[in-house]
Amino acid sequence: MSSSQIPSIQLHGRTYNLPQRPTVIICIDGFDPAYLQQGIEDAILPNLASFLRTGFHATADCAMPSLTNPNNLSIITGAPTSVHGISGNYYLDKETGQEHMIVDDTTMYGTTILAKMADAGVRVAAITAKDKLRRIINHGLSPSKKSICFSAQCANESSISEHGIDDVEQWLGQETPPQYSGDLSLFVLDAGLKLLQEDRADLFYLTLSDYIQHKHAPGSKESNQFMQDIDFRIGQFTNLGAIVAVTGDHGMSDKSDQDGKPNLLFLEDFLNSRWPFAGSRVICPISDPFVKHHGALGGFVRVYLGDCSVLQEMVTACRGLPEVETALAGSEAADLFEMPRDREGDFVVISKKGFVVGSRRDEHDLSQLGEQRLRSHGGLSEQKG
Amino acid sequence: MSSSQIPSIQLHGRTYNLPQRPTVIICIDGFDPAYLQQGIEDAILPNLASFLRTGFHATADCAMPSLTNPNNLSIITGAPTSVHGISGNYYLDKETGQEHMIVDDTTMYGTTILAKMADAGVRVAAITAKDKLRRIINHGLSPSKKSICFSAQCANESSISEHGIDDVEQWLGQETPPQYSGDLSLFVLDAGLKLLQEDRADLFYLTLSDYIQHKHAPGSKESNQFMQDIDFRIGQFTNLGAIVAVTGDHGMSDKSDQDGKPNLLFLEDFLNSRWPFAGSRVICPISDPFVKHHGALGGFVRVYLGDCSVLQEMVTACRGLPEVETALAGSEAADLFEMPRDREGDFVVISKKGFVVGSRRDEHDLSQLGEQRLRSHGGLSEQKG
Repeated sequence: MSSSQIPSIQLHGRTYNLPQRPTVIICIDGFDPAYLQQGIEDAILPNLASFLRTGFHATADCAMPSLTNPNNLSIITGAPTSVHGISGNYYLDKETGQEHMIVDDTTMYGTTILAKMADAGVRVAAITAKDKLRRIINHGLSPSKKSICFSAQCANESSISEHGIDDVEQWLGQETPPQYSGDLSLFVLDAGLKLLQEDRADLFYLTLSDYIQHKHAPGSKESNQFMQDIDFRIGQFTNLGAIVAVTGDHGMSDKSDQDGKPNLLFLEDFLNSRWPFAGSRVICPISDPFVKHHGALGGFVRVYLGDCSVLQEMVTACRGLPEVETALAGSEAADLFEMPRDREGDFVVISKKGFVVGSRRDEHDLSQLGEQRLRSHGGLSEQKG
Repeated sequence: MSSSQIPSIQLHGRTYNLPQRPTVIICIDGFDPAYLQQGIEDAILPNLASFLRTGFHATADCAMPSLTNPNNLSIITGAPTSVHGISGNYYLDKETGQEHMIVDDTTMYGTTILAKMADAGVRVAAITAKDKLRRIINHGLSPSKKSICFSAQCANESSISEHGIDDVEQWLGQETPPQYSGDLSLFVLDAGLKLLQEDRADLFYLTLSDYIQHKHAPGSKESNQFMQDIDFRIGQFTNLGAIVAVTGDHGMSDKSDQDGKPNLLFLEDFLNSRWPFAGSRVICPISDPFVKHHGALGGFVRVYLGDCSVLQEMVTACRGLPEVETALAGSEAADLFEMPRDREGDFVVISKKGFVVGSRRDEHDLSQLGEQRLRSHGGLSEQKG
């Protein structure tokens, strides 16, 4: 039954047919199942509703931690983070003790389905909301392979030589949207649509921003409007004859108490309060200096120790905290969640659904959260997407 | 059976006979029962040994917190801290939110046995090791009442008009000792002896410093030498015909682990790590900017909250910590330990014997502890003295 007539590529043990007609993969960042359910109930998502009725639909567990970078990479490699190597936005280099932000593909292992497709002659268009993700997923893509890869955030800086397309702003007739807006995501979809209309790509990877989901719960005016705008564009893709697949990278949970204050645990402060000589360093892999709306507070952190003799004691204590869903030794967590062992912390801590974990109080600018309830992700409670 | 012939004074419901012959009360600061027991076993304390054989001896519970100021005041008032008002070296003014160090008698309630005795014509000599304590216990004493009151620390600054004695250095023939030394305490005893020899007082209150006890465990060369030097002087007092009573203000415990590192809990960091919006302020009543050898780390702290709605939750969590002996709501602690209610924290935390509690890591200069094991007090485990 193998379709030997259709050419295919292979990656990480899986076979992928080359697209026979335009194929569009849309990754809605922070696409918690509650947004879909609420939108279906509110009858504002006719196109996604028709997908549910006539297409394939499932709620899946995303890779851990439930963050943007690891899951975008898992989507375009078909593999867990242990295989592609990107298990956070932020990591600590155990050799040097220095913290690094992942800003490009240098810490990535292997290649991507997109790059393999490009190598096989498929015209790939990969468009991201934020430029930092563009610089990772452009791995193996290049204008010389007829790939187009740019971000909405830096649309006004695009060039044929680097992005495979000149001056996206003028071409699309839209100004580069603000980095902190829902429009950044809609720009990605509009650009994808125009590329499809102009027949400039065969395989599209369009990945959005979770700015709206971080700020607005399912059923709110803002999130409903945003989901409706996305759904409308999904309809346009199908009308143009594309095969469309829509997925999320991770879920999103409310993390505030009844008074609207974030439910948070500053884990490095906690560890230093009780084991001041252990040299604990808590790394929040959700950290992102370009993002203000979650204050680097998520559901998953990695702890690195100067003195590992107290590791088991700490893990036990963390498990006993009411804010904590589970704490696991690094090797155990790496095995369980298929994360790269060599980049794992000495232990990891995952918060309960309604909670976030931070590092030190002085490292998190809570004033940036503003008046809105904190919504965030990273833990097991945001694994459904 | 009442000795109506002997004149007496009354304070806080108790009657005290005026001394019929020279009466010397010596308060050995940090006089843990282990120092006495070890010294008796090592046969280096012949005079104290004879007190045990032929006099009255008991191990008593001191006032809580087991600190110098509260217990010196309890000794010279015959009353708990709820009556005399001095329940720490350091306190937070609930009205202003400001922290204050107790440097004189302005926050004290009522008067002292010493002052009452002076009023009744008894010549009182009160000598302290440190000047900060002198400025509290000189309450109601004055040269006009023939009282003498000075500190070893400021012996070179003494004057007839303020201290009832001129130039103690020259009179005693000893230089003012270093503030951080065992000699500071021996100076107190030597000065008392000389006053007794010169018949300049009837009632002596001689209160020492716990510098040696903070640094050296019972049975060490240094603490044995110190105890021997004290015992020798006690013998001289009895030889001169004085009635001598020796007591301690509080005990002293080892607070380090097997590697010599202090076992400590930074409670304010702990509380802020889990309740970052509660406005927790931890006050260490042992704090003393003039003292380096315990890093302001003791066994008893007071917690003041901006938001008391989480008080019970915090108390329960603190009780569950392995470093903690008990945690009590302020009113409960005040009732149990007879402390002044109006100066009590919203709750108090008392560490286990081998542990100390601090506030924030950045508030404690651990480098001052040096290489020696931390020895400290303040908790229930140092109540025996």
